[in-house]
Amino acid sequence: MKPLSPTDQLFLWLEKRQQPMHVGGLQIFSFPDDAPDDYVARLAEQLRSNTEVTAPFDRRLDSRLAQPVWVRDKHLDLEHHVRFEALPTPGRIRELLAFVSAEHSHLMDRERPLWEFHLIEGLGDRQFAVYIKVHHSLVDGISAMKIIQRMLTTAPSKRNMPPLWDVSAQPKPDEDRSGPSLWHSVGHLLEQSGKQLGTVPAVARELLRTINTGRKSPAHQSVFQAPRSILNQKITGSRRFAAQSYCLKRIKAVCKAYRTTVNDVVTAMCASALRTYLMNLDALPDKPLIAMVPVSLRKYERSDCDKAEDNQTGGNHVGVILANLYTDENHAGTRLLKIHQGIQETKDRYALMSPEEIVNYTALTLAPAAFHLLTGMAPKWQTFNVVISNVPGPQKTCYWNGARLEGIYPVSIAMDRLALNMTLTSYNDHIEFGLIGCRRTLPSVQRMLDYLEDGLAELEQGVFN
Amino acid sequence: MKPLSPTDQLFLWLEKRQQPMHVGGLQIFSFPDDAPDDYVARLAEQLRSNTEVTAPFDRRLDSRLAQPVWVRDKHLDLEHHVRFEALPTPGRIRELLAFVSAEHSHLMDRERPLWEFHLIEGLGDRQFAVYIKVHHSLVDGISAMKIIQRMLTTAPSKRNMPPLWDVSAQPKPDEDRSGPSLWHSVGHLLEQSGKQLGTVPAVARELLRTINTGRKSPAHQSVFQAPRSILNQKITGSRRFAAQSYCLKRIKAVCKAYRTTVNDVVTAMCASALRTYLMNLDALPDKPLIAMVPVSLRKYERSDCDKAEDNQTGGNHVGVILANLYTDENHAGTRLLKIHQGIQETKDRYALMSPEEIVNYTALTLAPAAFHLLTGMAPKWQTFNVVISNVPGPQKTCYWNGARLEGIYPVSIAMDRLALNMTLTSYNDHIEFGLIGCRRTLPSVQRMLDYLEDGLAELEQGVFN
Repeated sequence: MKPLSPTDQLFLWLEKRQQPMHVGGLQIFSFPDDAPDDYVARLAEQLRSNTEVTAPFDRRLDSRLAQPVWVRDKHLDLEHHVRFEALPTPGRIRELLAFVSAEHSHLMDRERPLWEFHLIEGLGDRQFAVYIKVHHSLVDGISAMKIIQRMLTTAPSKRNMPPLWDVSAQPKPDEDRSGPSLWHSVGHLLEQSGKQLGTVPAVARELLRTINTGRKSPAHQSVFQAPRSILNQKITGSRRFAAQSYCLKRIKAVCKAYRTTVNDVVTAMCASALRTYLMNLDALPDKPLIAMVPVSLRKYERSDCDKAEDNQTGGNHVGVILANLYTDENHAGTRLLKIHQGIQETKDRYALMSPEEIVNYTALTLAPAAFHLLTGMAPKWQTFNVVISNVPGPQKTCYWNGARLEGIYPVSIAMDRLALNMTLTSYNDHIEFGLIGCRRTLPSVQRMLDYLEDGLAELEQGVFN
Repeated sequence: MKPLSPTDQLFLWLEKRQQPMHVGGLQIFSFPDDAPDDYVARLAEQLRSNTEVTAPFDRRLDSRLAQPVWVRDKHLDLEHHVRFEALPTPGRIRELLAFVSAEHSHLMDRERPLWEFHLIEGLGDRQFAVYIKVHHSLVDGISAMKIIQRMLTTAPSKRNMPPLWDVSAQPKPDEDRSGPSLWHSVGHLLEQSGKQLGTVPAVARELLRTINTGRKSPAHQSVFQAPRSILNQKITGSRRFAAQSYCLKRIKAVCKAYRTTVNDVVTAMCASALRTYLMNLDALPDKPLIAMVPVSLRKYERSDCDKAEDNQTGGNHVGVILANLYTDENHAGTRLLKIHQGIQETKDRYALMSPEEIVNYTALTLAPAAFHLLTGMAPKWQTFNVVISNVPGPQKTCYWNGARLEGIYPVSIAMDRLALNMTLTSYNDHIEFGLIGCRRTLPSVQRMLDYLEDGLAELEQGVFN
């Protein structure tokens, strides 16, 4: 028995029918060379025989004295958690994304441990997929990525790896939560405001005080400059998931030519995609869109193209930046440079600030969003329009029981007023985009994949001309 | 725009995360003889091109002046409603039932028309399946069956049938609701108590009055004789669906030998399965289980074996019977005869009653369950342990665009305190059982299929010895 932290309670409390609070990961694997055609079915058999389930996968919600706690589920039904499924003909990535879109829309059964493991056969080219779904109250994005990595190895010949849900023979999961985030900030306030989710009015009061203090300071006025857009409406319950992989080489070539960072280039790609998408819906605001982007606060270097970008977002030096996406700018190259400069200015400002000042600034940045989430009030305080976040993944080719991992895509959370989440993962020599959006508020989110590609191509054109 | 009836509102109001209020139907088809291997994929393409959607499939929920109404959905996204899916290897009925179990557990998106059509490939023996899911507020079980039948034909050569969701060229759906049922009874009370679901206290008061009147009358004391059992606990959100088809010939042979009705024999099969299931869990109550069974109130005939049983439950002469299942009786043949006699006695009593008296009796029968559903109070009033209901289906071999319908299985609703629902459909020369249960409250519901078979075999043994 273990009480839930305020942040964990928050994820349960925020969950609504149209706003599930689970995160997911989609992995695509290639069959080992010598695999028989029924390789995935055999794998399913093998997985089903692994009936040992260890923490946190054996924990279910319960309550003790009106306090939510995790308890060991004594009647764990592995068949409920480990699903063997198939894609319909013709088994392309399109069918896989449709599958994940539907599955990610479904709430999980709160009477059971809040995770599901889907082994998916029927993908073409001797490939298969794994979609893992975990409630955010059980694990956060960074920890989820760590847990997923624990089922992988860099050794192609290694077999009989323990399944995800049995990590008894493996190192303990890192209990550290990720750096500053919307959740962290709200969770922190919850902790300071009486520990209980029953104290939402107190927390909201605290948030309101933060916001009002901030509004009086000229340095913080920029926090309220985001325009309103269709990205910031109430959402419905069904999701569209779209994913795409990009060769890091392409992105680095652009970043070198423009003397920016990898993070700037992927942010510019997102900006470009959003701009085209909204223009096609005749819904592009006049004022530029603002993204919330977690970035590294290490000593800034002019060009970090040759460094592993993922290290930037790890560790404790992560700050939240409100990045102006300059979606009002027509020229792709100019847009990238402006985005770069904007992010750079915030980083420079952060360099002059003490860690405490950065924490306060981050809290202010996120307070209006948190205030809205908790109270549903004040929809006019739009401080950012979209979340663009980067979760570091493994930097070497990985294998799972001999099957090569071809890609790993994050499936995050869409929320009221944040109808789109763009999360990126770095894996090996690729950057992989996972977009999750409300299917009704944002029609045809999958088109954004084409627009991301167009955005990158436009930048490349500037390099080669 | 059309206001929801009180009964329709009831289905929305009763819906909870662990208690979805949609019904389903699973149909299994055989490929036409000349069909290519990619027949189902082509069918999917063809279905997708049918983008015309007519009432009630184009209606979504909205509200006007705090009153729930149906409005036309102007942004209908057919891809959300019509899903093409596949079973994993080896594509047996077992995988199909697992698929339906998972899908039936998921709540539907209330921002959209409340229906889904799943076309499922990957079933062996050149077969495929269709699982249709419709919210009970949009359509009831009998109407659903009628709508499903409208997409079918008895002509094997007929092609280009309009899809389920476009019935514009077809006769209007029969707006008649099914006969007395739990819902009908509660809906009726709602209507008498002020039309609005906001008046739940008034309705509950009315139900309580009904119950207390009944308790004073000696004739009605039998209503409170059901034992408490694991069938009558709070449920969780995940479901297990199990289905099985029985040749009507087998059942009729038994029913002739024992001089009972087909309905008596299937009720006895359910009794037998429940008895074995609960004994194996060491959870069989000492007192016999009581089932709620809708039955025909037409002039009783000693043996109706040679008549089409389905007509019995159609029309307006349907009454709700609390059938003693005699699960305390060891001998299968004796159990059948006792069940037959018990049902017969109620029918005889009904024959002496006026239609108004029968309606009152039915209301009393269902009132405690309704009272509990609406208020969550008084868990000790257990009037029945399980619902065993029979939905008439088509009596001739049916086809859908040349594919022969092999079976049609109902997928009903499990609820708090009614963790298992056993619904039967008659089709052609078969009786098809669909069992839906809470997967946690009732572990391994699928075992009941074996126990149903054992129950029938035991009765057959009595016939042949």
